[in-house]
Amino acid sequence: MKLYIGNQNYSSWSLRAWLIFEQYGLDVDIIKLKLFTEDFYNTLNQVSQNEKVPTLVDEGLAIWDSIAILEYVNETYLNGKAWPESKEERAIARSISAEMHSGFSCLRNELPMNCRAARHVEFSDGAVKDIARIDAIWSKQMEEHSEGWLFGEWSIADAMYAPVALRFKTYGIELSDKAKQYQQKQLNSAAVQKWLAEASLETDIVDEDEAGIPA
Amino acid sequence: MKLYIGNQNYSSWSLRAWLIFEQYGLDVDIIKLKLFTEDFYNTLNQVSQNEKVPTLVDEGLAIWDSIAILEYVNETYLNGKAWPESKEERAIARSISAEMHSGFSCLRNELPMNCRAARHVEFSDGAVKDIARIDAIWSKQMEEHSEGWLFGEWSIADAMYAPVALRFKTYGIELSDKAKQYQQKQLNSAAVQKWLAEASLETDIVDEDEAGIPA
Ligand SMILES: N[C@@H](CCC(=O)N[C@@H](CS)C(=O)NCC(=O)O)C(=O)O
Ligand SMILES: N[C@@H](CCC(=O)N[C@@H](CS)C(=O)NCC(=O)O)C(=O)O
Repeated sequence: MKLYIGNQNYSSWSLRAWLIFEQYGLDVDIIKLKLFTEDFYNTLNQVSQNEKVPTLVDEGLAIWDSIAILEYVNETYLNGKAWPESKEERAIARSISAEMHSGFSCLRNELPMNCRAARHVEFSDGAVKDIARIDAIWSKQMEEHSEGWLFGEWSIADAMYAPVALRFKTYGIELSDKAKQYQQKQLNSAAVQKWLAEASLETDIVDEDEAGIPA
Repeated sequence: MKLYIGNQNYSSWSLRAWLIFEQYGLDVDIIKLKLFTEDFYNTLNQVSQNEKVPTLVDEGLAIWDSIAILEYVNETYLNGKAWPESKEERAIARSISAEMHSGFSCLRNELPMNCRAARHVEFSDGAVKDIARIDAIWSKQMEEHSEGWLFGEWSIADAMYAPVALRFKTYGIELSDKAKQYQQKQLNSAAVQKWLAEASLETDIVDEDEAGIPA
């Protein structure tokens, strides 16, 4: 399998897909492409009908989009264990994952993922609302699974929310205690640490994703 | 089960979830709430942690977000048959469904769903690109499943793209032949016809979703 990802410093969607391979020690070749370059589009063009990262290619079959990749890997290689086992928790995990996948546009636009930076940024009421909603989601899950991941064991929902933990760090966002505890769990995990170490070796600057002033 | 939906004239996300019940004749109570009213938020507030439609409530368990509902219903009541059976097609179906779920923001903002209207609207280059990409997705699938749904049998991918077929009609968007054929398949289906008939009985106007001038 080949997983095409973007710059690790910036590509939040790539991180989501990358995490499932890392968390379960699945064998995959990582091909890193520099976002928005000619090489990026020329390479993806050869393997997929949609020129975005992440894209997974498994024996010639291209799967693009983070959540489709997560579902595919879960079904094909993990026997379903990357979603919570109980039907109720699985339904909630899918709801919050989908909520992240299609929502939070203010947060995404105004607080772009930028792993190596520490910034101060002015943000809109929409972003304030997004942050509060994420705080509420994390806090609620921590009430049920204190110390753990969102549903106890690591799941696809944690892949979906990992980039937010990093954004909140970059922009110094204050969280409630339980939400902060979950953020720390993400930041301290071996997989996220590995991603950060790799991101820190990159030197390219993607202007679109540089926001705010040094904190 | 109870499915909370918004105004049928406008609520594209609601249509996606509603369709799976209709296509498979599953028993569900439909509760229609008027978008952006006090009653809307007060009602959803009682049943879900996220005040959006569609929301499905099954024996006290709330599932919000269209694609989470579609996955839940498929897993719980349809034995998986609402995704294509082959692993390869399922991966592609999930990719295009996720692409719709998180993308096409220009199309969504500039050409809001408005079933009963026929409009002319000026749109951006971003919307032109969105339309071209959807045309390409539909055409490619029609090459493989001519006359059929995107993957032959009706699937969740068709639920995800139904609102676009309606938008293209409202705004008189020109499509290539194969894409047009698929649009017609959507528009002529009994389920979409039923939705349109119900939408046509509504009289409320949601200003946010009124765009363009009479065609
Ligand atoms: N919804 C997609 C989003 C993928 C996406 O937008 N990726 C960005 C980088 S993080 C990209 O490939 N951008 C290149 C472009 O849009 O031209 C997913 O979940 O994977
Ligand atoms: N990503 C969600 C989107 C749901 C959504 O935004 N629904 C709109 C109506 S179509 C809504 O409930 N709006 C009320 C609000 O945002 O206050 C899904 O797929 O279900």
